[in-house]
Amino acid sequence: MRLVVVGGVAAGLSAASRARRLDSSLEIVVLEKGERISYGACGLPYFIEGRVRSIDDLTVYKPEFFERERNIRIRTRTEASAIRHSSRELVLASGERLRYDRLIWTAGARPAQRAPARHDAAQCDNDARLFSLHTDEDALRLDKFLRDKAPKRAAVVGGGYIGLEMAGALRTRGLEVTLIENGKDLLQRGDAHLTQTIVERLERCRVEVRLGENAGDPRELPHDLILWSAGLKPNVEIPAEAGVELGRTGAIHTDDRMETALRGVYAAGDCCETNHVVSGKPCWIPLGTTAQKTGRVAGANSTGGRERFGGVAGTSIVKVCGLGVGVTGLSENEARQCGFRPVSARVEAFEKARYLLGRKVEVTLTADAGSGRLLGATVTGDEGVLARLNTVVAALHARMGVEQLAGLDLAYAPPYAPVMDPVLVAAQQLLRDL
Amino acid sequence: MRLVVVGGVAAGLSAASRARRLDSSLEIVVLEKGERISYGACGLPYFIEGRVRSIDDLTVYKPEFFERERNIRIRTRTEASAIRHSSRELVLASGERLRYDRLIWTAGARPAQRAPARHDAAQCDNDARLFSLHTDEDALRLDKFLRDKAPKRAAVVGGGYIGLEMAGALRTRGLEVTLIENGKDLLQRGDAHLTQTIVERLERCRVEVRLGENAGDPRELPHDLILWSAGLKPNVEIPAEAGVELGRTGAIHTDDRMETALRGVYAAGDCCETNHVVSGKPCWIPLGTTAQKTGRVAGANSTGGRERFGGVAGTSIVKVCGLGVGVTGLSENEARQCGFRPVSARVEAFEKARYLLGRKVEVTLTADAGSGRLLGATVTGDEGVLARLNTVVAALHARMGVEQLAGLDLAYAPPYAPVMDPVLVAAQQLLRDL
Repeated sequence: MRLVVVGGVAAGLSAASRARRLDSSLEIVVLEKGERISYGACGLPYFIEGRVRSIDDLTVYKPEFFERERNIRIRTRTEASAIRHSSRELVLASGERLRYDRLIWTAGARPAQRAPARHDAAQCDNDARLFSLHTDEDALRLDKFLRDKAPKRAAVVGGGYIGLEMAGALRTRGLEVTLIENGKDLLQRGDAHLTQTIVERLERCRVEVRLGENAGDPRELPHDLILWSAGLKPNVEIPAEAGVELGRTGAIHTDDRMETALRGVYAAGDCCETNHVVSGKPCWIPLGTTAQKTGRVAGANSTGGRERFGGVAGTSIVKVCGLGVGVTGLSENEARQCGFRPVSARVEAFEKARYLLGRKVEVTLTADAGSGRLLGATVTGDEGVLARLNTVVAALHARMGVEQLAGLDLAYAPPYAPVMDPVLVAAQQLLRDL
Repeated sequence: MRLVVVGGVAAGLSAASRARRLDSSLEIVVLEKGERISYGACGLPYFIEGRVRSIDDLTVYKPEFFERERNIRIRTRTEASAIRHSSRELVLASGERLRYDRLIWTAGARPAQRAPARHDAAQCDNDARLFSLHTDEDALRLDKFLRDKAPKRAAVVGGGYIGLEMAGALRTRGLEVTLIENGKDLLQRGDAHLTQTIVERLERCRVEVRLGENAGDPRELPHDLILWSAGLKPNVEIPAEAGVELGRTGAIHTDDRMETALRGVYAAGDCCETNHVVSGKPCWIPLGTTAQKTGRVAGANSTGGRERFGGVAGTSIVKVCGLGVGVTGLSENEARQCGFRPVSARVEAFEKARYLLGRKVEVTLTADAGSGRLLGATVTGDEGVLARLNTVVAALHARMGVEQLAGLDLAYAPPYAPVMDPVLVAAQQLLRDL
């Protein structure tokens, strides 16, 4: 039995490792088109910022580790070009054909083609000023440019996670930074208040923010450096051609065992859509943590397991010039689109005892007016964001109501949290408003 | 209608404030036997340590605030001595009789009589070296002693929260410290590993720890300063004499509306037992955060509300010489006593990306082998303890199983959390062992 995994980052390596753990006799081959496996792509902005000295520090494991310790064959610089499922063969870019019994597709996502065609991120070599930050090669090239050319003015195009982190990272490297976002909102939550909070922090760090502005042709931007981070799209073309079903999000549709419409072909990670535990609907939220979880499930089931992936809550957290910004569940706008009647409460509260120099966090909770069910949260602050966010994440997975949330026995001690945790203060406020 | 509240700290003031919010016409009187209301007793060790300059910084509100802003009458230095419920009268220590329509008893707890009788904490004036740390007066007296007498060697008797915090606080003030605990365990969880972790940290900070040792007669201890922090007992004698039912824990038994066996008499805070959401059994875990929640419920129901208190998970967190120690739910020992078949998994994992200088946290999860239901957790570490602990708290309230816990969509970003949060790593480990 041979398992072939396409993609050697979070989802692929989780899948391969899990398969190996459950089946010691399986032949396992992982194909990675890049040079490195297992690097922490989410750490690339911190490499650019200068807090991580070498890109190798982001690499959790080297190929030799998998080969030696886990008996998993790793083939880097190896790209798939077609799936011939009737004959259970993967066609590689080199022309080689690789037979599989089980296939796990974890080919990830790539920068969306939202830049003008000749200058999109995939072709950024056309303009030496134009960069994306999707792979380690991108990061190395950008770092070299920063060192060699000492650019003064940068434009960051796109107000998602990478854009926000990179705006801060480039400020730290001393550049003047302008952030240009096509839409009216940052982080695509349709949340004007959240956008305002982030804009204020960016402006305090002297990042110029331009919302609702199309960056247009990057050749016409006057900046010395252009970071194009305007969205991603899933790498689905090859499995789609082979008959794998795509969902309405455009990403691969799987069942909750991560199996695609082709029996024996699984998919995991950024190329897949997942179920949202609050809306109950498919969503495409490509993140490393989901990649690792779905990879594990795909790996287990490829060896005959019966594991299920329970879905995502739409959680994310990002640091924007020192400000922690966390979201989970549905925003008011998203909740309305899903047929809920959202009501929100927003509070500012200390994250720990004021007399121990506690800082304020802002917690916004959203619930359904009809049922009292908790739907989502936004948490922002310089300290203490993660604890509040993850409390709500657990509550969302449990389909908790606001009343139960308001009664949680959350930890209290002056150096860690106030007697009423900000989540409880917000829940009590929301109970009054429901 | 007159509501009388006995006790002017967390539970009492929450109750009075909530009653006022729901009923603007009620006459509300709060009796406090001490000089101050609303002080943060949990902050007293930080005052001793020197991080809080004035005890007034711990006081959230002054009596004038409640009188002026909330039309709540506050009588400090006013002690109750009996309840005459048939005539709806409270007898005060002064002999005065105060009529009530509704009564909320929030008289808290006091140091247990575990020191030799003539030297117990209530009579510590007998020996100028002997202190407890239960009220602001205690803290002021201790601080003066530290400044005036410059003691060199301190004995801290009792390995609960106050003892652990005070061992650290007295080290910070430069004293040699010996911690003496009667039992074999610190924090009374019957958890040898947790005890070992805490002992190691204490010893690293050069606190001498003596477990399983009876401190005996404090007169015979050779130390310059003795802090007696060996347990608490609830202030229940007066309501018990009036016919209020006590539970098997020795604290006041109420229904989930916080009403006692006497109709119209409510109780809240440290004098009450509460229901444990995991064991389903009554427990007595006196903590400020529970006091505030039960106070709110009692206050609402005293005005005719129908609110319920959902119980506690047994959560607490304490900082021991810089080490965060958090517990929630049942320890293995407690779980066994409650009829579960506990299985535990323990992992060490980074609390955020290693390449951003993440520190290790240790997470121990306990679940029931039969059902897979999560029963409790212990989290220790220098950073990142609160987020992991509170995630589990929410899961315990939701009666979550380990499998669902392992799939939570917890937040991930390098400066905040690793791609697999330590809670998820522990849950995955536990799933293997169940």
